[in-house]
Amino acid sequence: MLKIPALEKLVHELSRLPGVGPKSAQRLAYHILKSPEEHTLHLVDALKRVRNEVHLCPKCFNFTDQDICRYCSDPHRLNESICVVEEPSDIVRIEGSGAFRGRYHVLHGAISPLDGVGPDQLKIAELIFKIEDSKNSNAPIKEVILALDADLEGDTTVLFLSRKFQNLGIKLSRIAHGVPIGSDIDYIDDRTMSRALLNRVEV
Amino acid sequence: MLKIPALEKLVHELSRLPGVGPKSAQRLAYHILKSPEEHTLHLVDALKRVRNEVHLCPKCFNFTDQDICRYCSDPHRLNESICVVEEPSDIVRIEGSGAFRGRYHVLHGAISPLDGVGPDQLKIAELIFKIEDSKNSNAPIKEVILALDADLEGDTTVLFLSRKFQNLGIKLSRIAHGVPIGSDIDYIDDRTMSRALLNRVEV
Repeated sequence: MLKIPALEKLVHELSRLPGVGPKSAQRLAYHILKSPEEHTLHLVDALKRVRNEVHLCPKCFNFTDQDICRYCSDPHRLNESICVVEEPSDIVRIEGSGAFRGRYHVLHGAISPLDGVGPDQLKIAELIFKIEDSKNSNAPIKEVILALDADLEGDTTVLFLSRKFQNLGIKLSRIAHGVPIGSDIDYIDDRTMSRALLNRVEV
Repeated sequence: MLKIPALEKLVHELSRLPGVGPKSAQRLAYHILKSPEEHTLHLVDALKRVRNEVHLCPKCFNFTDQDICRYCSDPHRLNESICVVEEPSDIVRIEGSGAFRGRYHVLHGAISPLDGVGPDQLKIAELIFKIEDSKNSNAPIKEVILALDADLEGDTTVLFLSRKFQNLGIKLSRIAHGVPIGSDIDYIDDRTMSRALLNRVEV
């Protein structure tokens, strides 16, 4: 390092970002110093603006710049079906499929004891309250679809939720795992193929 | 994308940084939104501070927060020898070796016609002026050591400078390329080995 406090501070702040180690933080800091000053000002404005305008939707915990997010406020979507995702960005993937017209619920993570993430750190209590609360409305929630990652944390969270949901009297499902569309059978890993065989569908 | 203008703007600004594609810019933006607000404020402060305090040293074009950088203002360093590097960060590597006690000169890049970088975009005229100017002082520059990257752009720049320096009457050298200290001969690539053989040193 060049022993310039302002530069060291920037490297420190940049290296807090995910996937940015000390070396790439240094590279980013040098780039920022060498780029036109207006680029830095634009970045500063964008950072301030995003923190001022964007917050969590109080209903589904998606990011929004409105009082209620666009999916929760859309009158054309079905109230009876809720798709549970780990992150707001996962909603974009689900929407891209065009195969879901219900509401969303963002957990903001998955259970991961190794990372110190338990059920209390996730929006699970809020999900259960939402389901219970809907029973008194004219559009009760009938189905919850879990669209969690196909990894250990996702599996753990599915298991935890399936137990929690036992007495809620609603249908709980998980999106299918199997061979991706358009892929060559030859390149599919063992665990995916095992799941694809186990969950085979009658034709 | 979640169709939130403030978020889209931040993703756009982040994706201008080197090595940050649209996908990782999105991941960074989500992380920034989910992290404590004070982290964002610290980053904003660091960005503003670095642009306010840090500038190029008018003598060697290294970054500094002083009028003249610490290497140019150090009275114990030799004026007669100048080490030419591509980037300010390269100085840290040279200093780490402890084998150089002269002054520096930062080109801010290397000649790369494919990227549209010609000699005029680099601090080459300033280097030549500095050498010419020192002839009238009581400590004229006697040697210029090129510590440029061992790639095509570095080689091109060395070639260009060696022609420019022909009539300047100073010693021009380039740092040695060869087998790194502590490495196993078995793992050395062909071009490095070829250079190591060509530049063999009598023992």
